[in-house]
Amino acid sequence: MNRVPYQFSQRATQLTSSAIREILKITERPDVTSFAGGLPSHLGFPAEQIRAAYNRVLADSPNVALQYGPTEGYRPLREWVVSDFQARGTHIDIDEVLIVSGSQQALDLIGKLLIDPGSKVLVESPSYLGALQSFSLFEPAYEPVATDDGGLVPEDISEEKADGARFIYCLPNFQNPTGRTMNLERRQALVERCARLNVPIVEDDPYGELRYVGEPLPGLLQLGREAGATVLRMGSFSKVLSPGMRLGYLVAPREIIAKLVQIKQATDLHTATVTQMAVYETIKDGFLKTHLPKVRELYRHQCQFMLDAMDEHFPKSAKWTRPTGGMFIWVRVDEKFDTTQALAQAVEQYKVAYVPGEPFYPGANAPKNTLRLSFVTVTEEKIRAGIADLGKLFTP
Amino acid sequence: MNRVPYQFSQRATQLTSSAIREILKITERPDVTSFAGGLPSHLGFPAEQIRAAYNRVLADSPNVALQYGPTEGYRPLREWVVSDFQARGTHIDIDEVLIVSGSQQALDLIGKLLIDPGSKVLVESPSYLGALQSFSLFEPAYEPVATDDGGLVPEDISEEKADGARFIYCLPNFQNPTGRTMNLERRQALVERCARLNVPIVEDDPYGELRYVGEPLPGLLQLGREAGATVLRMGSFSKVLSPGMRLGYLVAPREIIAKLVQIKQATDLHTATVTQMAVYETIKDGFLKTHLPKVRELYRHQCQFMLDAMDEHFPKSAKWTRPTGGMFIWVRVDEKFDTTQALAQAVEQYKVAYVPGEPFYPGANAPKNTLRLSFVTVTEEKIRAGIADLGKLFTP
Repeated sequence: MNRVPYQFSQRATQLTSSAIREILKITERPDVTSFAGGLPSHLGFPAEQIRAAYNRVLADSPNVALQYGPTEGYRPLREWVVSDFQARGTHIDIDEVLIVSGSQQALDLIGKLLIDPGSKVLVESPSYLGALQSFSLFEPAYEPVATDDGGLVPEDISEEKADGARFIYCLPNFQNPTGRTMNLERRQALVERCARLNVPIVEDDPYGELRYVGEPLPGLLQLGREAGATVLRMGSFSKVLSPGMRLGYLVAPREIIAKLVQIKQATDLHTATVTQMAVYETIKDGFLKTHLPKVRELYRHQCQFMLDAMDEHFPKSAKWTRPTGGMFIWVRVDEKFDTTQALAQAVEQYKVAYVPGEPFYPGANAPKNTLRLSFVTVTEEKIRAGIADLGKLFTP
Repeated sequence: MNRVPYQFSQRATQLTSSAIREILKITERPDVTSFAGGLPSHLGFPAEQIRAAYNRVLADSPNVALQYGPTEGYRPLREWVVSDFQARGTHIDIDEVLIVSGSQQALDLIGKLLIDPGSKVLVESPSYLGALQSFSLFEPAYEPVATDDGGLVPEDISEEKADGARFIYCLPNFQNPTGRTMNLERRQALVERCARLNVPIVEDDPYGELRYVGEPLPGLLQLGREAGATVLRMGSFSKVLSPGMRLGYLVAPREIIAKLVQIKQATDLHTATVTQMAVYETIKDGFLKTHLPKVRELYRHQCQFMLDAMDEHFPKSAKWTRPTGGMFIWVRVDEKFDTTQALAQAVEQYKVAYVPGEPFYPGANAPKNTLRLSFVTVTEEKIRAGIADLGKLFTP
C-alpha cells in the first residue's frame, strides 16, 4: 500500500497561491511598467543614517545587539513608541507596547490570539489582501463591512453583524487598496458603536505618516480610549524608514499585550535585537521630523502626477479615488470590463501591470471592474505612458 | 449587561505563562549565578566582522537591503546553504531552502503546515520546551518517544504510535535539554523506520556546529534521503554567529517548501533583507571555517570545567550526561528531590539557578528529579562555587 508521505493541515490545504505573489512575479520583468507593486520608494530610504546607526550600535553595544533579547522588544524603542504617542496627545504605558517583525507579524499574532475556526471577523470591503491571507490561516468567517468615499460605514455594523465578532479590522488612513481615509465623524461613530457592541477594533496604520494633503485625523486608538472601545493599533517603520528591516509595533491594553508576548515567544522568540537597536539609534533624536517631509513630498508629487495623467487619459466611465496620502489609487472602470481577465492583455499588449480589485473583497459578489494602482516607484515618463495605455484598454 | 470586551481563541486561552520565561527573569538578577540560561556566549560573537558586513551591505546595496524581498529569502544566502550541504556530501536544490527569522520561526511554520487540533505529533521525551510551546499553539496531541544515553530510541516508535502521526520532532545533536547525541545506528534505524511508517522527520540542529569532541555524524536529512524518508531540517545562525540577528533556514522537499512559502508570506512577508545580506556578507568567503574552532574551544573548555566541578562536588546518587558538544548538561539527582520545588531554595539560599527538568517532558509521569545546566556564559569561579552549592543542595 502506498500512503502519502505527509499530510498537510486543514489550514494549509485551503491556502491557494497568492494573487499578489503571482503579480509581483510579473513586476520583476524589466520591460513591464508596474503599477501593481506595494513597494515604498527607495528614494525615501535614509540609507546613510541607517548605515551609521548599525555602525554605532555594533561598535558600542555588540554584546547586547547580537544576543537574545526580551520578547516584548528593546526597551528604549518601546519607550520611543510611548513618547511618540504622547506627542500626539495619547498617553500609553510601556506595558501596552509590543515590538513586532513588521506589522504583517502583528496580524499573525492577532489571528492567533483572537480567531478560532469559524470565528466571525469583520473586515472592510475591500480590505488589505495580506491581512485577509494572514487571518485566513486561523480559518475565520469574514463578515464584510461596507465602505464608501468616507471610508468604513459604521452604520453597516448591525447588532447582528457585531454579535460574536472577535474584532473588526480596519485601515483608517489611505487604505490599502483604495487610498481612502475614514472621516472624523465616521471614526467617532465607529469607536462608539464598537464600544457599545463590544467589538474590539484592530487599527492598521502603516501609511498614517504619509499624509501629503490636509491635517492628520485622530486615530481610532485615541478616540477609542475616550469612548471605551478596545483598540489594538498597529504601526510600522516600513513606510517611514525601510520595509526591508521588517519592524513594527502593536499598542493594545496590557492584558492583551501580555498574552501576545506569550504567543510571540512561541512564534519567533523576539524580533532581531540589532534591528531594533539600529532603528532606535536612527530615530531617537527626532530624525523622522526632518526625514518625513521629504518622503511626503515625493509621494505627493508622484500621486499628483498619476492623477493628472488619469484626468487626461482615462475615459469618463472610469471613476477613481483622489488620495490625501499613502501609496494607492483605486479605480472603478466601466462595468463591461473584468479587470482580472484584462490583466493578461494589459501585460502582454501594453506591458503595464496593475492589481485587479476582486481579491481584496472578503465576501461573495465582489465587483469585477475595480483595480489598484501604485504610483510610488514608477518614473513620470512611464506613469504617463502606462496610464495612457490603461486608458485605452479600459475605454468601453 | 456587562459583556467581556474581547474573547481569546481556544489556543490562546490554554497558553500558560512559560516556565522558561519566569526563570529567565530570575537569571537577570546580578547576584544570582545562573546555569538556567540558554544564551550563547557573547565571546563567540564576531562583532567586528558583522559590523563590517552591515557597513558594506548598506554602503554598496542600500536599495536592495532596505527594500521588501522575496519570501523564500535572499537568493545568495539560499545558495550558500546549498553549497554548505554540498560540502558535507548532500546535494540539495535551491528550491528546497527557505530562510526563516530564527529557527523558532521554522517551528511555527511547520506547526501551521502540519498540525490540526488533535493531530498526533511524536516528540522525544524530554524535548526542547520552546518547540513544545510553539507546536502547542496548533493544539496537537503529543506522543512521547523514549530516549536514553544513545538518544531517541527508534524501537519505541511502534506502528500504532506512528499511525496518523503528522511528524516526529527530534534534535539529534547535543539535544536541548539533555546534551545527548543520537548515535549513528539509531539515526539509521530512525530514518528507515520513519520511511517505512510514513512519518516525516523534523530535524532540529541548532547546535550541530558546536561539536568539540569526536567527529560529526551524518544528519537525518542526509540519511533520510538515502532511506526514502521525508525530512525537514532546521538550521540556525544563532549559535555560530549571533542569536540577536534571528536568522535560520529550513531545508525540505520542494513541494513542502512551496507551501511553507505561502504560509510564511501570510506570517511575516519575509525575513529582514538587510539581516540576510549582512549574514551572507559575513560568511560568504569561508569565515565560519576560522571562526567556529574558536567557539568550539570556548564551549569545550566551559563544559569540561563544569564536568570537573560536578565530579568533585556532586553526590554519588546524582547522574549526568557528558556532552560532546552544545550548551547543556542534564542531571538526574536522587529520587527524593523535586527539582521544581528545590529551585526556590537554590535561588534564595545559594543564589544559584537551573532549569527544572519537568516542563521538558511532553507527556504525563515526568520524573521530578531532573534538571538542566548551561555552562556557557558563567565564569570559572562562579561555576565552581555554584556547582558546589548545588552538590550540597542535592545531597540526600
